[in-house]
Amino acid sequence: MGTLTELFAPDRIAVVGATAREGSIGRAVTDNLLPAFDGEVVPVNPNYEEVMGLSCVDEIGEAAADMAVIVVPPKIVLPAIEQAGEAGVENVVVITAGFGETGGDGASRERELKEIAAEYDLNLVGPNSLGIMSTANGMNASFGPDSPEAGNMSFMSQSGAFITAVLDWANDEDVGFKDVASLGNKAVLDETDFVDHWGDDPDTDVIIGYLEGISQGREFIDTAREVTQDTPIVLVKSGRTDAGAQAASSHTGTIAGSEQAYEAGLDQAGVLRAESVQDLFDAAQMLANQPVPENNDIAVITNAGGPGVMSTDAVGDSGLEMASFEQETLDKFSEQLPPEGNIYNPVDIVGDADVERFRDALDIALADENVGSAMVLSCPTAVLDYEQLAAETVELREKHGKPVAACFMGGESVDDSAAILSDAGIPNYFDPSRAIGALDSLWEYRGIQQRTYEEPADFDVDKDAAREILERVEDRSDNRLGVEAMGLLEAYGIPMPDGEIVDAPEDARAVAERIDGDVVMKIVSPDILHKSDIGGVAVGVADDEVADTYETLITRARNYQPDANLLGVQVQEMADLDSGTETIVGMNRDPQFGPLMMFGLGGIFVEVLEDTTFRVAPVSETEAREMTEEIKTAPLLRGARGRDPADLDGIVETIQRLSQLVADFPAIMEFDINPLVATPDGVAAVDIRLTVDPENL
Amino acid sequence: MGTLTELFAPDRIAVVGATAREGSIGRAVTDNLLPAFDGEVVPVNPNYEEVMGLSCVDEIGEAAADMAVIVVPPKIVLPAIEQAGEAGVENVVVITAGFGETGGDGASRERELKEIAAEYDLNLVGPNSLGIMSTANGMNASFGPDSPEAGNMSFMSQSGAFITAVLDWANDEDVGFKDVASLGNKAVLDETDFVDHWGDDPDTDVIIGYLEGISQGREFIDTAREVTQDTPIVLVKSGRTDAGAQAASSHTGTIAGSEQAYEAGLDQAGVLRAESVQDLFDAAQMLANQPVPENNDIAVITNAGGPGVMSTDAVGDSGLEMASFEQETLDKFSEQLPPEGNIYNPVDIVGDADVERFRDALDIALADENVGSAMVLSCPTAVLDYEQLAAETVELREKHGKPVAACFMGGESVDDSAAILSDAGIPNYFDPSRAIGALDSLWEYRGIQQRTYEEPADFDVDKDAAREILERVEDRSDNRLGVEAMGLLEAYGIPMPDGEIVDAPEDARAVAERIDGDVVMKIVSPDILHKSDIGGVAVGVADDEVADTYETLITRARNYQPDANLLGVQVQEMADLDSGTETIVGMNRDPQFGPLMMFGLGGIFVEVLEDTTFRVAPVSETEAREMTEEIKTAPLLRGARGRDPADLDGIVETIQRLSQLVADFPAIMEFDINPLVATPDGVAAVDIRLTVDPENL
Repeated sequence: MGTLTELFAPDRIAVVGATAREGSIGRAVTDNLLPAFDGEVVPVNPNYEEVMGLSCVDEIGEAAADMAVIVVPPKIVLPAIEQAGEAGVENVVVITAGFGETGGDGASRERELKEIAAEYDLNLVGPNSLGIMSTANGMNASFGPDSPEAGNMSFMSQSGAFITAVLDWANDEDVGFKDVASLGNKAVLDETDFVDHWGDDPDTDVIIGYLEGISQGREFIDTAREVTQDTPIVLVKSGRTDAGAQAASSHTGTIAGSEQAYEAGLDQAGVLRAESVQDLFDAAQMLANQPVPENNDIAVITNAGGPGVMSTDAVGDSGLEMASFEQETLDKFSEQLPPEGNIYNPVDIVGDADVERFRDALDIALADENVGSAMVLSCPTAVLDYEQLAAETVELREKHGKPVAACFMGGESVDDSAAILSDAGIPNYFDPSRAIGALDSLWEYRGIQQRTYEEPADFDVDKDAAREILERVEDRSDNRLGVEAMGLLEAYGIPMPDGEIVDAPEDARAVAERIDGDVVMKIVSPDILHKSDIGGVAVGVADDEVADTYETLITRARNYQPDANLLGVQVQEMADLDSGTETIVGMNRDPQFGPLMMFGLGGIFVEVLEDTTFRVAPVSETEAREMTEEIKTAPLLRGARGRDPADLDGIVETIQRLSQLVADFPAIMEFDINPLVATPDGVAAVDIRLTVDPENL
Repeated sequence: MGTLTELFAPDRIAVVGATAREGSIGRAVTDNLLPAFDGEVVPVNPNYEEVMGLSCVDEIGEAAADMAVIVVPPKIVLPAIEQAGEAGVENVVVITAGFGETGGDGASRERELKEIAAEYDLNLVGPNSLGIMSTANGMNASFGPDSPEAGNMSFMSQSGAFITAVLDWANDEDVGFKDVASLGNKAVLDETDFVDHWGDDPDTDVIIGYLEGISQGREFIDTAREVTQDTPIVLVKSGRTDAGAQAASSHTGTIAGSEQAYEAGLDQAGVLRAESVQDLFDAAQMLANQPVPENNDIAVITNAGGPGVMSTDAVGDSGLEMASFEQETLDKFSEQLPPEGNIYNPVDIVGDADVERFRDALDIALADENVGSAMVLSCPTAVLDYEQLAAETVELREKHGKPVAACFMGGESVDDSAAILSDAGIPNYFDPSRAIGALDSLWEYRGIQQRTYEEPADFDVDKDAAREILERVEDRSDNRLGVEAMGLLEAYGIPMPDGEIVDAPEDARAVAERIDGDVVMKIVSPDILHKSDIGGVAVGVADDEVADTYETLITRARNYQPDANLLGVQVQEMADLDSGTETIVGMNRDPQFGPLMMFGLGGIFVEVLEDTTFRVAPVSETEAREMTEEIKTAPLLRGARGRDPADLDGIVETIQRLSQLVADFPAIMEFDINPLVATPDGVAAVDIRLTVDPENL
C-alpha cells in the first residue's frame, strides 16, 4: 500500500454511479464535489450521457481518474472496484453499504472486496463510508450535508453520522479541518494508515478521531508512538464501559478487545484519550493552536475571588499545579495591586480592575520562569472592557510564547471578545474547569513528547526447551498446563524456588534432603484443579515426613478421582512469605492487541480491590517498571510500614521475561505466575497456570 | 430571627446612602431598584433633598421602610444598622465592604455588627454583599449590572462576582431565577437560613448555590435534609482539593473545615454536589423542569450508531443503566424499524429515519414500564426536520410524564429546535455525556427523596463515669489519654478484651489466671507513646511468665525514661487475630461540622490505600451501617475469599456508641479505636487513643 497523499489530493475523481436523481447518494456526492474541488470530476454511469452538466463515461477505464468514489448498489461494487484496479486507479472510496456490517452475504462480499483490493494494491476507504474530504483542494467526496472549513486538524471517524454532526457544529463554531475521513467498515485502510499518513502531513497539526475499535493493535501502537512525537492524537474510543463495549460490538459487528487492552494500548501509543465529545474538541483546539508549556505550573489572574477558588479546585483535579511565584514577581504584584488584592496565586486583582491592571498582572505572571501557562479569569464589571482585554491577552500570549486559556465569564456580553480570542486560537469557556482541562491536555501532551521509547530487552533464552514443554499440551483435553510446566520458567530465566516433580516417595525424600529446611508438597495432575480443596497440598513438611506425606497425597488424589492422570508430587522449597510479598504477573491474549501483561499484588489486592495494571507486550524495561510503580499498593513493594523493600528489579525482569515468552509463542493464550513471591533478596515464581492453543504451536 | 419572606418581598425599601453620583454603588442600587420594583424606594441621605427624582429623607426612621439596603462607608454602617433596628426595620442588606474580610479593624467592626443585629433580631444579609434580588416583585437590591429573568430556581452565592457572571450568562440562555442572594460575609444570615426559607417558598423549585464554607455544619445538615425531601439543592462547594481549600481559606478568611467533613456533611444533608459551574447548571435545569424518574433505566433512541455507543458509555459512567425492553416493546420495534435497525437499547432507527419514525420509537420506548427516562439522540440528516422532532419530543414527554433529555447534535441548524426544547424545559446538548449526566442528577435526587432519616439511637450509658475518666486529662500536659482510659468504653458499652491495668506483679498474675489462655502485656504511661519501640509490649505471655514479664516491662520503661509517669501494666486477653479483621473506628472534631466519625480497615488499608469513610456525628444506625458497606474493602468484612464474615452488627453498634460519646462530650477532640478487632462472634476494642480539651469539660 502506498502513501495516502494521492487519496486526499487527486487530480481527477471518477464518481462511479453518479446520477442527477434527487435524493440519491450519487447526486449528493457529485453535488458536494462540483462547487469547490480543484481537480476534475468525471461521472461514470452507462445509463447517462451527462450528469449535472458533466459528460459521463460508461466505464471507469475511460475516466483517466486517479481516484474513484463508488456509490453503485452493493451487488455491482466488486466489479466496479476490479475495473478501477484494472484501470490503474489506486485510490478508491466505497460509500455503498451492505457489506460486513450486515453479516451473511455482505460479510462474504467484504472478504472478496479485500482480496480484490490486495490484488491491485488499492488504497481503499470503506465500504459503508460517508466519504472523505480535504480542505486543501476543496474536495468533498462524501454525501454529507456540510463541507468543513479549513483548519489544521485532521479527523477520522468510524461513525459517518458523527462526522455530519461535528461538521454542522464546527462550521458554526469556526472550527476547521485539513482532512476528514469516514472509515466505514475499515476493510482495507484503517486508523493506523490514516495516523501514519497525517503524521507526515505538514498541514495536519492535530489528529482527532472517533473509534469503536482498533483493527491491528500492535501496529497502531508502533505507528502512533512515532507520530505523537510531533503530532498529537486525541481520540474518543467508545466502549469504555461494559455497556458501551457491548453496544460498540453490536454496532460494528467486530469482536471487542478488552477495555484494559485499549487503555494500555492507547497510552503506550501516546494517544490522548478523550472521554466525551466536549473533551475531544476542548483538547484538540488547544493542541491545534497553542504552544506546549515548559512546566506544569499555572498562574491564574482574576478579578473575582470566588471563581479564582473554583479554578484552583480544577487545577487540583488536573495534572497542573498552582505556580509559586518568584520573589521578584511577588514584589511587582505588591507594587501593582491594591492592598485588598492577593499577590499569591490565584492572583486576585480585585473587582475594580480595569484592562490595564489585568494586562500588567498577566504580563508580570507570564514573565515569571516558574510559570508555564496562565489563565485569564474574569467576571463582567462596569470598568472592564472585554474586547480590549481579549486583544491584550492575545498580545501577551504572543509576547511570552506560553499557553494562555481564557475564562471570560458571561453570556452575550462576552461574544465579541470570545471571537477575538478564538481567532488567535484561545478558546473561551464559561466554566473555569473546562479551561483548565484544556490546558491540562497540553501538559499531558508535553509528557508524551518527552517519552523515549526503548526496544524491549532480548534475553538469552532456551526457546527449544520451552517449545518442547508447551507441546505437552497436545496430550491434554483442556489446553491447560500447571506446575508440571515450570520448566518454561527455567527456559526463560525466571527464578523459582528449588524443587522437582517426583513420582516415588524415595525421590521425594532425596529432593527434600537436598533442599535446606522444610518443604511444600503438592499433587501434580491436570485433572485436579483445586489441589488445596482435596488436601492435595502439604506445607512445612520436615525431611523425615516427606516419604509418608508423598503416600498420603497420592492416596487422597486417588480417592478423589480414581482415574485422574497423576504426574507425581512437586517437592518445593518453602517461599519466605514472612519477608516476602505475593505478587501476580499475568498475561492474556487480546483479540486486537495481542498479548496483554498484567501486574498486581496477590490475594485480596487483585481479587477484591482490583488493583492491577496492564501493558501490551512486548514490554520494555521502562514499561515493566512503570507497572510496578503505578498500582495503588506500590508503596507496599517499596517498603511501607517498616517492611524491607521488595526486589523490584527482580519483578521488573520477570515481567519482561514473561513478556518475551508470550511474544515468542502466539500459542500461549493465558499465563499466570501466581504468586510471584518478592522478598528483599529476590523473586520466586511459586505456581503457574497457562492455557495453550495447540493449533498455534 | 423570623422568616425571610419579608426580606425578599418588602413593601418599602430604604436605600441608606443613596446618591445620584455616577459610578457610585448608591447610584447603582437605586438604578437597579427603580425600573421594576413593585414597592416603594426611599433614598436615605442627609446630604440630598432628592435622589433620582425620589424625595430623600435624612434618617431611616423617617422612611417607614420594612427593608434597608446599606451602602454608606464602613465607618458609619454600624450606626445606620442601629437606626434601622430602632426604627423597627427588620430586614437589612449591608452592601458595604471593609469588615471581616479585611481582618483588623474590619473584623472587630463585624463583631459589633453581629451584636447589634442580635439585639434587634435583624434579618441581616452581608456585609460585603452584592445585594439580593427577587423576580416575584421585580426587586433588584444590588449593584450588579444585570437583573435576572423570572424562573423557579433560587440562587445564593458566597461570591458576588460569580452572581454577575451567572446572570450575564443566564439572561443569554433564558435561564431564570426566583430569588438571588449574595451572602457576603455571612455575619448573620447564612446558607442555612436561605435554604430554610426557600424550602418553604412555593415558587422555588430548586435551590442552587456557590459556597466556600458552611458556617454551622450540623444545623445545615438538619435543615437541608428536610428541605431536600421536596426541593432539590445543588451546590458547588469549592475547596474540594488541597490547593482549592487553601485558596478558599485565603479568600474568605475563615478556618476551612476538612474536605472529608464537607463531603460527608453535604451528602448527609441530601445536597447534590456539583464539581463545576457546568455541572451545577446542567443538574439544576433538569431538576427545575423535569419529573423525577421512577427507575434508573434509560432508553436511548438514535438515528446514529456511533453516538449511540458514546451515550452508552456515558450511561455506564453514571448511576443510570441501559433499559432492557419488555418483549412487547421489542416486538413493536421489530415491526416498526427497518431490518438494519437495532431494536435493543440503544435503539438505532437508522440514518434515513424521519420525524415520524423517531416519534413512534420514542413513544414505544416511553410506554415500556421498564423505562424510567429517555434520550433522543440525533445527527442531522436531509430527511429529519429538527424543529418538528423537538415538538414531538416535548409532546411525548408530557404524554408519558417521564423525563426526557435531548441531544440534537449540530450547530446552527439545531438552534431553532433547541429553543422549542428549552421552552419546554428540555435542555439540548451537543455532547451525549452531558445529557446523560443531567438525567443522572434527577435519578440521584430521587434517591435523596426516598431516604428516611432516623434519629440516632440513644444508648443507656454511664455518662458520669465517662466524665470522671475524661477529667484525668487535667493532670496531663499533652491532653492525651490512652489505654488507661479504656473505662470510657465500658461506660459507653463498647466491648473490649478482658483485662486490667495493674501495678504489681502478683496482681498481673491474678488477672492473667482469670483470663483463659495467654495474655498481652503493655506498659501504661502517658509519657511513652511508642510502647513497642522500647520493648514495652509482650505478646502471648503464659500464666507462669506474667510476673517476670511485669518486672521486665517496668525495667525497660524506667531505663528508657527514668522520670516517666508509669501508671502500671495492662494485662489483656489476646484478640483472636486469626479469625478477626482489624478495623479502625475514629473521630476528629471539624471546625464547621463538629465530630466527624471515620471507619476503615486497619493497617495498610487506611495508611497506604486510604480506604476510609466519614460521617458527621451523631450517626444513625443506617448511617453507621452505610459506613461499613461503602469502603472498598467491605467484601473482606462480609467474608470474601472463604473467610467467615465479621460481626458487622457489632461494628455498626460500636460506631454508634462512639458517636454518642463524642457528641456527649465536646471536650473530646480526637478519638481512635485502633484496632477494633472484628471476629465472626463479636468485636473488641484492643487499643484507644484520644485527645481531650480540658477547657471544654
